Amino acid sequence: MEPMTESTVQGPLTDGELDRLNAYWRAANYLTVGQIYLMDNPLLREKLTPENVKPRLLGHWGTSPGLNLIYAHANRQIVSRDLDAIYVIGPGHGGPAIVANTWLEGTYSELYPSISRDAPGMQRLFKQFSFPGGIPSHVAPEVPGSIHEGGELGYSLMHAYGAAFDNPDLVVFCVVGDGEAETGPLAASWLSNAFLNPARDGAVLPILHLNGWKIANPTVLDRIPGGDLQSYLRGVGYEPILMEGDDPTLVHQAMAAAMDRCLDTIKDIQDHARGTGDGTRPRWPMIIMRTPKGWTGPKEVDGKPVEGTFRAHQVPLSNPHGNAEHLEQLESWLRSYRPEELFDEDGVPIGELLSLPPTGTRRMSANPHANGGELLRDLVLPDFRDYAVDVEKPGAPQVEATHVLGDWLRDVIRANPDRFRLFGPDEVASNRLQSAFEVTDRAWAARTTPLDDHESPEGRVMEVLSEHLCEGWLEGYLLTGRHGLFTSYEAFIHVVDSMVNQHAKWLKTSRRIPWRRPIASLNYLLSSHVWRQDHNGFSHQDPGFIDHMVNKKAEVVRIYLPPDANTLLSTMDHCLRSRHYINVVVAGKQPAPSWLTMAEADLHCRRGLGIWDWASTDADTEPDVVMACAGDVPTMEALAATDLLRKHLPDLKVRFVNVVDLMRLQPVSEHPHGLTDNEFDTVFTTDKPVVFAYHGYPTLIHRLTYKRTNHANFHVRGYKEEGTTTTPFDMVMLNDLDRYKLVIDVIDRVDGLGSRAAHLRQQMIDAREECREYTREHGEDDPRVADWTWPA
Amino acid sequence: MEPMTESTVQGPLTDGELDRLNAYWRAANYLTVGQIYLMDNPLLREKLTPENVKPRLLGHWGTSPGLNLIYAHANRQIVSRDLDAIYVIGPGHGGPAIVANTWLEGTYSELYPSISRDAPGMQRLFKQFSFPGGIPSHVAPEVPGSIHEGGELGYSLMHAYGAAFDNPDLVVFCVVGDGEAETGPLAASWLSNAFLNPARDGAVLPILHLNGWKIANPTVLDRIPGGDLQSYLRGVGYEPILMEGDDPTLVHQAMAAAMDRCLDTIKDIQDHARGTGDGTRPRWPMIIMRTPKGWTGPKEVDGKPVEGTFRAHQVPLSNPHGNAEHLEQLESWLRSYRPEELFDEDGVPIGELLSLPPTGTRRMSANPHANGGELLRDLVLPDFRDYAVDVEKPGAPQVEATHVLGDWLRDVIRANPDRFRLFGPDEVASNRLQSAFEVTDRAWAARTTPLDDHESPEGRVMEVLSEHLCEGWLEGYLLTGRHGLFTSYEAFIHVVDSMVNQHAKWLKTSRRIPWRRPIASLNYLLSSHVWRQDHNGFSHQDPGFIDHMVNKKAEVVRIYLPPDANTLLSTMDHCLRSRHYINVVVAGKQPAPSWLTMAEADLHCRRGLGIWDWASTDADTEPDVVMACAGDVPTMEALAATDLLRKHLPDLKVRFVNVVDLMRLQPVSEHPHGLTDNEFDTVFTTDKPVVFAYHGYPTLIHRLTYKRTNHANFHVRGYKEEGTTTTPFDMVMLNDLDRYKLVIDVIDRVDGLGSRAAHLRQQMIDAREECREYTREHGEDDPRVADWTWPA
Repeated sequence: MEPMTESTVQGPLTDGELDRLNAYWRAANYLTVGQIYLMDNPLLREKLTPENVKPRLLGHWGTSPGLNLIYAHANRQIVSRDLDAIYVIGPGHGGPAIVANTWLEGTYSELYPSISRDAPGMQRLFKQFSFPGGIPSHVAPEVPGSIHEGGELGYSLMHAYGAAFDNPDLVVFCVVGDGEAETGPLAASWLSNAFLNPARDGAVLPILHLNGWKIANPTVLDRIPGGDLQSYLRGVGYEPILMEGDDPTLVHQAMAAAMDRCLDTIKDIQDHARGTGDGTRPRWPMIIMRTPKGWTGPKEVDGKPVEGTFRAHQVPLSNPHGNAEHLEQLESWLRSYRPEELFDEDGVPIGELLSLPPTGTRRMSANPHANGGELLRDLVLPDFRDYAVDVEKPGAPQVEATHVLGDWLRDVIRANPDRFRLFGPDEVASNRLQSAFEVTDRAWAARTTPLDDHESPEGRVMEVLSEHLCEGWLEGYLLTGRHGLFTSYEAFIHVVDSMVNQHAKWLKTSRRIPWRRPIASLNYLLSSHVWRQDHNGFSHQDPGFIDHMVNKKAEVVRIYLPPDANTLLSTMDHCLRSRHYINVVVAGKQPAPSWLTMAEADLHCRRGLGIWDWASTDADTEPDVVMACAGDVPTMEALAATDLLRKHLPDLKVRFVNVVDLMRLQPVSEHPHGLTDNEFDTVFTTDKPVVFAYHGYPTLIHRLTYKRTNHANFHVRGYKEEGTTTTPFDMVMLNDLDRYKLVIDVIDRVDGLGSRAAHLRQQMIDAREECREYTREHGEDDPRVADWTWPA
Repeated sequence: MEPMTESTVQGPLTDGELDRLNAYWRAANYLTVGQIYLMDNPLLREKLTPENVKPRLLGHWGTSPGLNLIYAHANRQIVSRDLDAIYVIGPGHGGPAIVANTWLEGTYSELYPSISRDAPGMQRLFKQFSFPGGIPSHVAPEVPGSIHEGGELGYSLMHAYGAAFDNPDLVVFCVVGDGEAETGPLAASWLSNAFLNPARDGAVLPILHLNGWKIANPTVLDRIPGGDLQSYLRGVGYEPILMEGDDPTLVHQAMAAAMDRCLDTIKDIQDHARGTGDGTRPRWPMIIMRTPKGWTGPKEVDGKPVEGTFRAHQVPLSNPHGNAEHLEQLESWLRSYRPEELFDEDGVPIGELLSLPPTGTRRMSANPHANGGELLRDLVLPDFRDYAVDVEKPGAPQVEATHVLGDWLRDVIRANPDRFRLFGPDEVASNRLQSAFEVTDRAWAARTTPLDDHESPEGRVMEVLSEHLCEGWLEGYLLTGRHGLFTSYEAFIHVVDSMVNQHAKWLKTSRRIPWRRPIASLNYLLSSHVWRQDHNGFSHQDPGFIDHMVNKKAEVVRIYLPPDANTLLSTMDHCLRSRHYINVVVAGKQPAPSWLTMAEADLHCRRGLGIWDWASTDADTEPDVVMACAGDVPTMEALAATDLLRKHLPDLKVRFVNVVDLMRLQPVSEHPHGLTDNEFDTVFTTDKPVVFAYHGYPTLIHRLTYKRTNHANFHVRGYKEEGTTTTPFDMVMLNDLDRYKLVIDVIDRVDGLGSRAAHLRQQMIDAREECREYTREHGEDDPRVADWTWPA
């Protein structure tokens, strides 16, 4: 296809429209450069002096003029079509560009009144940028209209798609940087269009901003043959329109034409899909915008080319303080935008500019979709108690906890057809949430066949073999005011460690921004956990995501380890009602005993941890030892251990403690869920041995409890990176978390138990060896452990 | 292009060749199914009974027949062309397929003599698979010829490219699953060809195994229009040959023809590049192989279609024990391969099969490239002492530590032109390692322009904006016996958390496999660290990668925090000499004081931690307080704090301790580098307050030291998730790690200091406030902290 360049495009813009658009763009560029450089003299009413310039120059110019251009042209479409649109900025280092636009639109001053839309406000706008006590250099939560922190690259397009799901009238303009396009997550994102239903969902318009350079290198997509790039983007389902040039006048015409064509096509696609009910995947339009990096900035600095090269990435003129030539270049650069024509004598943008952007909530900077809490509606949640497993006695029946949860989730999906989705990498059924498919399908807008199992464009279960996409889509969905749950193998949720870092930082920061409204929590259900990788072995064993999350701010992180089905129901109900947290829930998918009735489970979950009297033998007196546990498999082993102790050492007073909410262990000074020291001591004693069977890496329990009175007596068992493809009991034995080892741990830590205990200790050693041998010979667990049940 | 199907291909294979190839494939398939199901009766000499079948059926059948087909055809090419080739298996869940081939080739029995290539060996081969005490179900380190653990999906193609770099005569057959092709890392990997030099590097032949299904879903690449798939793969630089069918005879012909064409093309490309010296990117060949999932397995089970559907993913017949029909289907499935024609009466593969594969180290299962330690040659390392910063007194001069290191690395690159590369996501120069470009370029085989800065096909610096690719390429490079260093922003190394997990598991497991030789360590240099994100702020601040790594096995993980340039030199020399570790080195790129002479630095690094007498005032007596630190910025703040204490409280005896090797803090029982308790107590005392200024999250220091005598007196300062775009000193203040706060911490913890200390405490509070105000006003740090130097 012919690129849309000066020679090929007959502009849709009249001369007057073009002038106004270009003036707006000049204003945004001026305000961008001003933020990077100036502390004072914002309108250049006087000659620029070194004192006007900030002492430390921190910011990214290179991508900014492109971001400003797209913003202006998106506004043109919003006004002419009355679009409901938001702007997702992949090259989010270009923070000052977006801030400039939000100030021009007035939103910035509405939300931050001290940054008024006049000369004094402009001076403060400039000074605060990347300045101590001011605002960050990227598109951060502080920036109105943003749902996408501009620090870590690669997630823009998945956020855009997440925003578009279930928002039929929304258009998401998504700028993809050609640097971030090299990342894996972005490369996988293009095909998100195979999961988008044009009848039910909104539209994403990707704009690949091909300015050709990163910090130091060219970009790959800029240097492969042009035909290959077109071929690549067609391959992932788009009709790319190439728009290139470096003459602003001509580029404005080309961009206007490209945008016109894209928005026309989107309308045609949606009209067709909505008219016919056909939700299958069309060929969506997109734009490749090839313009110079650092466009309109200095052409050359210190004898080296800058505009159109990697040297334009950050601050093109590095030393206006000490280098008179730099200072002069800076001044002529700023004056090249002719600020005197753009702002009146009070520093207010001239009326012609003010009349250009949309108004009210049509402004992308004020669109409520980009402040999702404003649109958030509570989920309709069926009473989870109605889904309870009937527990007549502890240990019976054996159920798949996540299967039980699945029935409730099915009805959550049914009751909330417009605002709840389930996300998972090809594992929703494998994780036993298959009941969902009684009421919905997997979202699938690509080709289907009769062999498929519940695949359709109407599906509300998002499955793709990419944890990155699941996370990014869900984040985009939550940030625009909806709800969801991400279910994954426990080990592979580490794939999104770095993504969830950014989300946690977003939550922490936005919590302190008064105009940002709380959004629904990011909920993880980590099933297929470390202890039950019978099929997969060592590569699938890693419980460290919990540790990773605990490093984040206590105000946003919650960790739950429900020991059975009823506690899982209660926990998940709580999580889906919560706001602005990251909830990590770990629960098994294998048949396992149920311990608590629904009433007990609900109370236990509300307490977060507690003594299970029915499993304890200390009868309200001071125990000899505390047997504590967290996690389903550790709970079973710990109970089996107390069972052995009761039978063989009936005089030993054992207190049984189960922990659901891991954050209860932390001091209240460090986490809002933390127990007071007094409460903690009441449960864990001040001086008795505590044998703690824990789901994950044992050091975490020490980390959470090291300030507690009795910490020196804590002895924790957990995963120690030993494992392979083997039986469930062999796995706990490999890691010394098994019932026999726990009994040995108790015997080794309680003084004065005498010869009967010594005898039991040897029995335990023998039992481990016998179990190991049985397993090696028969390939399954010894019946004495496989068939063990809690006594009546 | 026409697909190569039955109707279009005239086979290159004679009838005899085709029969032999097909017999070999049948044998491999038989051995695959045998491993998944059988404990006994391996040759089906008797009727199959439930007792012959394993009690727990754990494995993945679906991908296996395809893997076996490609293996057989790769062998044909190896034999006919005398190729040096290895096999990287993306769908590594198909472990039994690869094990089957290595057993047929004889390698398995050579390395594991009890699994002989005869009937008793076959029985053991079958039983051990996914069996307690046996081998894992995936392609794991235990599998000869593998460099790629088959658990976590997405990294096959980057491993393949890493293996090919600097191995001009190597061909890497790389099977890419259409499931893993949905992951971000794999999607980004295709364009690795833009970094491969056909003159200097080997070749990767990607084979996209399009069997259409994942666990429960279709695959996206199977369901986009066929033209789009071709377009996509052409877009990323390949000439895809589509090969499809389900009739084995015809597919063999098509596959043979496709492989012939690909290997011919590779030879042409290499001949041209090597003849002309032209290292630019050609259009590489690749194969799309569209065959049924679970091909040759049961067509239907329990009335539902299996072959060619997602139901073939794992174990198609789930209950041969309890379901007579399943048992019968299993038997006829196994017999369909006609084992009686494939194995002689002793169970040895018939001569016709034995003569088919290559021999010796030409076997992919015995190729030394896949056991890289066998080929590993030490690096030629220039004496790092020659690059020392001349330190006349502590604190002078100020240098960029990584810049100093860069000079040494430049000469490491120069001295090892065939086995060392530097990897980084567009940040090598940004991290101040630009000296490398005095002797080499960035690897860049795509189009270049005159504006480029050191881009060429000959470059040895691998820069791409993807931490995934950097990590994967480097892992592939190391696993095939070479050396490298990965430099990254500290925060974004979390992008590869999950990848490095798998590498750590590989190292741990392969260490226990006698025939696996140690490889060079995986070395990280994390510069642009949490404390100096002046440009970028909160999104770029996360020191948690250290915590992540510490969860891995102590035998493979090392963490170093060199406080200055000379200690960084000594540390990195040590890391590049080490084997089979993961070394994490955190060091700053900003101008910072040098504290130790080279001799002192070298000694300090060998000790791992130590008392700095020149900064201490306890003069060999018992101190009043220990001021400890780890990391460059914390070391400076801790020294500045002791400076203040010396001046204002001259009678206070302060011991100054610096930690380079973080693992020294752990008990020797938990890490081989750990200090004994006695050594630890000698340094940190048994009862004095320890104020510890740490680079990362403070809890890690507690975690490492909680078993130490004096732990209760440890008070740790570090990063607590507070930050933004601001000045260096403001950042440490935000996190209470600054010198003033450390002085306050000392005063608050040492008893009986009197009124002078109380006065100093107030001075410190005032100083913090003054610094904060100064910074808010001037945008830079107060000169009293910015200009501070250690006294003579």
